[in-house]
Amino acid sequence: MIEALALPRNEDGISAALGILKQRFGDRFQTGQAIRDQHGHTTTWIPTQAPDAVVFPDSTEEVAEIVKTCAEYRVPVIAYGTGTSLEGHVNAPAGGVCIDLTQMDKVLAVNAGDLDCRVQPGVTREDLNTHLRDQGLFFPIDPGANASLGGMAATRASGTNAVRYGTMKDNVIALEAVMPDGTVIRTGQRARKSSAGYDLTRLLVGAEGTLGIITELTLRLQGIPEAISAARCSFPSVRDAAEAVMAVIQYGVPVARIELVDTLAIKAFNAYSKLDLPETCMLLLEFHGSEAGVVEQAETFGEIAKETGGTGYQAATTPEERNRLWKARHDAYWAIRQLRPGTMGISTDVCVPISRLAECVGQARDKLDELGLIGPIVGHAGDGNFHVALLIDMEDADEVARAETYVGWLNELAISMDGTCTGEHGIGQGKKPYLVKELGPATRFMSAIKVALDPDNIMNPGKILPD
Amino acid sequence: MIEALALPRNEDGISAALGILKQRFGDRFQTGQAIRDQHGHTTTWIPTQAPDAVVFPDSTEEVAEIVKTCAEYRVPVIAYGTGTSLEGHVNAPAGGVCIDLTQMDKVLAVNAGDLDCRVQPGVTREDLNTHLRDQGLFFPIDPGANASLGGMAATRASGTNAVRYGTMKDNVIALEAVMPDGTVIRTGQRARKSSAGYDLTRLLVGAEGTLGIITELTLRLQGIPEAISAARCSFPSVRDAAEAVMAVIQYGVPVARIELVDTLAIKAFNAYSKLDLPETCMLLLEFHGSEAGVVEQAETFGEIAKETGGTGYQAATTPEERNRLWKARHDAYWAIRQLRPGTMGISTDVCVPISRLAECVGQARDKLDELGLIGPIVGHAGDGNFHVALLIDMEDADEVARAETYVGWLNELAISMDGTCTGEHGIGQGKKPYLVKELGPATRFMSAIKVALDPDNIMNPGKILPD
Repeated sequence: MIEALALPRNEDGISAALGILKQRFGDRFQTGQAIRDQHGHTTTWIPTQAPDAVVFPDSTEEVAEIVKTCAEYRVPVIAYGTGTSLEGHVNAPAGGVCIDLTQMDKVLAVNAGDLDCRVQPGVTREDLNTHLRDQGLFFPIDPGANASLGGMAATRASGTNAVRYGTMKDNVIALEAVMPDGTVIRTGQRARKSSAGYDLTRLLVGAEGTLGIITELTLRLQGIPEAISAARCSFPSVRDAAEAVMAVIQYGVPVARIELVDTLAIKAFNAYSKLDLPETCMLLLEFHGSEAGVVEQAETFGEIAKETGGTGYQAATTPEERNRLWKARHDAYWAIRQLRPGTMGISTDVCVPISRLAECVGQARDKLDELGLIGPIVGHAGDGNFHVALLIDMEDADEVARAETYVGWLNELAISMDGTCTGEHGIGQGKKPYLVKELGPATRFMSAIKVALDPDNIMNPGKILPD
Repeated sequence: MIEALALPRNEDGISAALGILKQRFGDRFQTGQAIRDQHGHTTTWIPTQAPDAVVFPDSTEEVAEIVKTCAEYRVPVIAYGTGTSLEGHVNAPAGGVCIDLTQMDKVLAVNAGDLDCRVQPGVTREDLNTHLRDQGLFFPIDPGANASLGGMAATRASGTNAVRYGTMKDNVIALEAVMPDGTVIRTGQRARKSSAGYDLTRLLVGAEGTLGIITELTLRLQGIPEAISAARCSFPSVRDAAEAVMAVIQYGVPVARIELVDTLAIKAFNAYSKLDLPETCMLLLEFHGSEAGVVEQAETFGEIAKETGGTGYQAATTPEERNRLWKARHDAYWAIRQLRPGTMGISTDVCVPISRLAECVGQARDKLDELGLIGPIVGHAGDGNFHVALLIDMEDADEVARAETYVGWLNELAISMDGTCTGEHGIGQGKKPYLVKELGPATRFMSAIKVALDPDNIMNPGKILPD
């Protein structure tokens, strides 16, 4: 069984803080086992470590109040958005208070002229995009899950169209956050660029709630493109498909999405979504631009695909065709789970320089067979990022052990290729040993920052950094 | 006269460290007054504060050795690239050792397939682009001066084409740095994205050498576009030109450059470069893309220009035409200096949300007249960033005082418009009071990070943070 280290609990402090918060928040303070378990529930094989209580604030001031109380009694504080993170980020290994931010779900301002907006952290990406649609704007980061924007910032999320629009680090202009002592700060103003002091915005993005709790985000928006088109193309192997991706990036085609789906994942899509896609490795693409621009991009890709052994290239320009093509990809999680019902789905998240992608994904594919594991592969290939969705029978200790071996082997393979163990999911509890392998002495300075800003280690303890 | 506060000197420590470094570095250790003055020389009205010695290392190991010696004796260390920073960044208010990185000028690797490269910090942007040209690649950040890439990272520089390609924060993939205790770290690997721990890359970018010395950069590159075209268009006033810029950004035209030049600056260009541009406010544009794409962009801009009162729209598609159009912009610094020979040129650097640009630049223009100051305006208008190039007679105390009033007034105006006092030059010594006005309590956490990583305050002391 995968371990999740419990940390020492400050029982007296927890008891005192809970008493105060219960008094203050009434019904918005909950300690029932079910709600606690739900808030410590992880989506992977890391066991649940429930917090002692869950509070539902509805303003920055209330978050600051909770943090001040917890700071006074040295009680852990864990921020919670939609609970879709994948590395045990919401676990409470030392107990403490979970701050559920779902009631802070307002879009506070949309500045269409500046292509930016201000939102509370509990707004989900789908809600934001629904809100923006009438103004011809959208927020491009799409990690798949309908995650909260605060959580997406905290894990430095990205997803299918990061290849064109970047990740959360590139699309957060500024943050408001409650720091570990309860101080509310703003990390920047609304200008599109700034050289004013240390980049606290980018420090909090990806800090997984260990340095402060994000209470407001100023986000960069995009105009909805004049034209969007999609295409798909089959390849004999993941290596061939990855070669085509490498060519697309090197050629500088500004694709908005270029997703790799392996044979097993295609089979899952066909079964789940009742499609008849050719059962071999495939690339799914989306092009954004002017009417002429997307045609040009699609043509360029068509030529690249031909040169790299692609077959069955199909372009789709109407929304209906496009939606059909992308529906399978969006349903990937459910489709893949259905390949082997009753098993646990574990997603790896390595990301390598694009020139190493074919080699990395090819080896990742071969190693599955060697270890006798089932793991369809889907990937944001334009970034060099792909996920092996391991389907593990958690009752089979030997299979679990082989899966652990696989995950460690793949993380180390990516690191040896000058890549990272996590392209977009974060370190959380699950990848702590690999962070040290990847960045070595740099992690010592991360720890120094953590100690300086959070000397009592109350902000999401037990995540990211070596214990 | 503008003040530059001297900080207490650690005479015994400086004397001991200098003795050791002289012994170790021989001719590459210099203490002559001229060379010291040159390395503490600022390009603005902040007086020179020379270091006690200048060392010329040629490797990361040597930089680490120097920093370790200085750390042992608590002696300030100031990194120096080309000395083109504008806010007193290279001054040595507490004395100490200047590390001149110009001998670390190697391009270490170009990974064309990954669109990235590794360079030493003393490589200048022009040298890098010359090196890359044969491979069809370029590094897009162009701050005007032929600055070193290490210095550009340290100040979070940007420039004319940040509107399309972003700033240094967006184009540095990872850094190697010598930290204040002499430890060498790498902040990331070479994957295009990562969620692995705190973003030390973005923390060091813009830290102005106060947290560590950058000894190597992994940079993101771009393919040289298939087509580049340029255009210019005149407007009755800076406000009208700024309105056109706002429309371009809001319309989502992916311009590569959109520079605003006011009437006085145009007069300077005409005189200096022997041109006959219409003597009224102008926008200079550059479009990058496919052959069809740049034509489309130019046409879209032409329509916007017409609707916003633009006249004399001229497109240029051949390299010769384009170079003629941009020559004036590239010679701006010298042209403007010639408007009033013998005076000091001081550049402001405010950046505001694009919707406030017309108002901000308009007020900035009016205030010059009100205070009787001469200051042509040039700006990276697509980012909401513009520079008033004040030409000040430093012998005239009253004029200097009025200029100081102006700079402070403009910084505060930008901050009041949700903008920043510095879009791309940095805080250095010159803008320290405005950082606190802009970001308030956040600066306390910047100071906490500084103390945690550099407890003896040896890394470029007296810069960025409140004393």
